[in-house]
Amino acid sequence: MQVAKTIAEIRAWVRRTRAAGKTVGFVPTMGALHVGHVSLVQAAAAQCDCVVVSIFVNPTQFGPGEDFEKYPRPLEKDLALCEQNGVDAVFAPSSSEMYPRENLTWVTVQKVSEPLCGRFRPGHFRGVATVCAKLFNIVGADRAFFGQKDAQQVAVIQRMVADLNMPLEIVVCPTVREPDGLAVSSRNQYLSPQERREATVICRSLQRSAELIRTGEKDAARITDQMREVLGQVSAFQVEYVSIVDAASLEDLPRVQGRVLIAVAGRLGSTRLIDNIVVDAATK
Amino acid sequence: MQVAKTIAEIRAWVRRTRAAGKTVGFVPTMGALHVGHVSLVQAAAAQCDCVVVSIFVNPTQFGPGEDFEKYPRPLEKDLALCEQNGVDAVFAPSSSEMYPRENLTWVTVQKVSEPLCGRFRPGHFRGVATVCAKLFNIVGADRAFFGQKDAQQVAVIQRMVADLNMPLEIVVCPTVREPDGLAVSSRNQYLSPQERREATVICRSLQRSAELIRTGEKDAARITDQMREVLGQVSAFQVEYVSIVDAASLEDLPRVQGRVLIAVAGRLGSTRLIDNIVVDAATK
Repeated sequence: MQVAKTIAEIRAWVRRTRAAGKTVGFVPTMGALHVGHVSLVQAAAAQCDCVVVSIFVNPTQFGPGEDFEKYPRPLEKDLALCEQNGVDAVFAPSSSEMYPRENLTWVTVQKVSEPLCGRFRPGHFRGVATVCAKLFNIVGADRAFFGQKDAQQVAVIQRMVADLNMPLEIVVCPTVREPDGLAVSSRNQYLSPQERREATVICRSLQRSAELIRTGEKDAARITDQMREVLGQVSAFQVEYVSIVDAASLEDLPRVQGRVLIAVAGRLGSTRLIDNIVVDAATK
Repeated sequence: MQVAKTIAEIRAWVRRTRAAGKTVGFVPTMGALHVGHVSLVQAAAAQCDCVVVSIFVNPTQFGPGEDFEKYPRPLEKDLALCEQNGVDAVFAPSSSEMYPRENLTWVTVQKVSEPLCGRFRPGHFRGVATVCAKLFNIVGADRAFFGQKDAQQVAVIQRMVADLNMPLEIVVCPTVREPDGLAVSSRNQYLSPQERREATVICRSLQRSAELIRTGEKDAARITDQMREVLGQVSAFQVEYVSIVDAASLEDLPRVQGRVLIAVAGRLGSTRLIDNIVVDAATK
């Protein structure tokens, strides 16, 4: 497995790989790799000849007071996990390699970046879009793989790729869950044992919404009311939003129809957690 | 010569060209081609195996009340000129091919976009950066060629390419001038015969600044005062700015040192004209 610390190194590696006629799948990560990331690597390996993983905790997507400093960076463990899972090359640049000068150029995606997490993390999706544009330009992959867990990130990146005609395909992979339903996340390790047990309330609220839709409920407000009732069972969970939106545009839907994203975010102690499901509702 | 109207066609053409081991030079234009564009094509042909010219009057870089509607679009003449000059492929998309849906994604370059023309054409460089990002992603060239005449455009694109790690090289070519010194521009055709004669005052003011610097003048205000005196000889010319700035950052320089951009913009009747020179002044 190649470990590239510089842009020149990863570009040279990809150039050789392409010259040998191979396709390249790319999994951008912030490290602290878990089974969710492994599922992305497996999807990339199934669809492409070679797999590149990037590991970079991107400073421009963290706001003031967020967890940039304390975000876990277990690089040796991450590299071992990549090696075990057949990754061909890891790109693990320093901050100064990615941002060698004051960054003046920003990629913004209007509308899609604004609701949901956009309201609670101003500037976050500008940072995500900008670093993904940089990474896509550096790696030059055929396909990039993202998890549905970060639903708004997926929608922002898909819109950016479409609007800017970026020459790669975005592949979205299902959210990986713990046996009790909690969506796997690098931030779950911040939770105390009690918080870890309580955190399952988020996916239970999403399951409730799925049941309601299955039994014919179309009214978004009635569904979110029931979800908030479930979430209220854990008094420590502080809801940021419970939203039912169009899965592509992220526009609020008063009634459930088409591909619908049902998304929850909130805090358990000092840990921010998000989760979502996508439901294909009959258009009626 | 291949004429591609769609993104799929030009991509297929470039893919075949690259597969044959050839490098691709790219000259993005808004059409109404003139000897300035021809010089870019010649530079591209000298440095690359194949030359692609794009012809697209980009709506997102025109402000309300600007000349988007009346901007000249002599497509047949442009294609003939490309053919005569050995262009290998022309990409001439429709607006709906380039912008098939509401464009939500924008590339902005802070600071570099703000002074000079940025103050008089709000949103212009956002449109330029965004369409160039799109075109670079569509064409996938090794090098793109721009004229020094649009000095701020050059600075914005160079900064965008550096900040976003775009995998191509930007080549800047000298401003082409008419025998009397007027910088060649598609907008010169808007000028009446009298305005055409008067328009040379712009390059005469730039020549004055070069002479002053040659004879040791370092004080930017004294130089711009003298330039304004020259410009004042044509009462019909309405100055927008006369500026001495760092050629890369476009920051104002009180004293001439390093690579210095001396830039003028203004209106003659309803026609907006710009011109500039770059002077390498001894650092002292």
